[in-house]
Amino acid sequence: MKADMLTSVLNELNGTSADIEASGVISTDGLMMASVLPAGMDEDRVGAMSAAMLSLGDRTAQELNRGQLEQVLIKGRHGYVLMTYAGEEAVLTVLAKPNAKLGLIFLDVKRAAESIAEML
Amino acid sequence: MKADMLTSVLNELNGTSADIEASGVISTDGLMMASVLPAGMDEDRVGAMSAAMLSLGDRTAQELNRGQLEQVLIKGRHGYVLMTYAGEEAVLTVLAKPNAKLGLIFLDVKRAAESIAEML
Repeated sequence: MKADMLTSVLNELNGTSADIEASGVISTDGLMMASVLPAGMDEDRVGAMSAAMLSLGDRTAQELNRGQLEQVLIKGRHGYVLMTYAGEEAVLTVLAKPNAKLGLIFLDVKRAAESIAEML
Repeated sequence: MKADMLTSVLNELNGTSADIEASGVISTDGLMMASVLPAGMDEDRVGAMSAAMLSLGDRTAQELNRGQLEQVLIKGRHGYVLMTYAGEEAVLTVLAKPNAKLGLIFLDVKRAAESIAEML
């Protein structure tokens, strides 16, 4: 039931913008809780990379006096990865296209992360 | 001489916005090439965390089909860390305040990274 509710938030999120290619909710230890990914994208790989980036992001934020980590954004030539804490136990990871309007995506992702945090 | 030129680009960058607290140019293996940091912020720590984040960011961008890594942004409760490739050998790392106007910072950092890439 909880997985269905999470999946429904992710479906809604992916539907808000054609620039969002995939999304997933991942426990902070890297296990997938729900995902809406395109065919051919491996759930375990998204989970593992999200957990690793957040762990190092946490440490970087601490070492450089940025306070508690909230988000990590990776920009590659072919698109973005945006990881956002949804409460303290989970992370919302979103993959977006290279020309995505970041301001809109930040807003939609923030709302989705708040919904997810309330469900968990 | 090259260090002076780099430092001058960093001074100019830090001067464009009161939201930019610190900046540094770091070789991709984590050694500081030039920096304009506030008192009490350790150069080696900035270099080491930048190199570690970029290395994992590179791998994440590859694994999740985002193409070649261009930037990593970390958002903490007390501010941002923005790492941007300046050519292939160096990285421009900027620390910014929590309420920074990201659009302006992205623009100024992009220009500074281009100047730095030309110098190296």
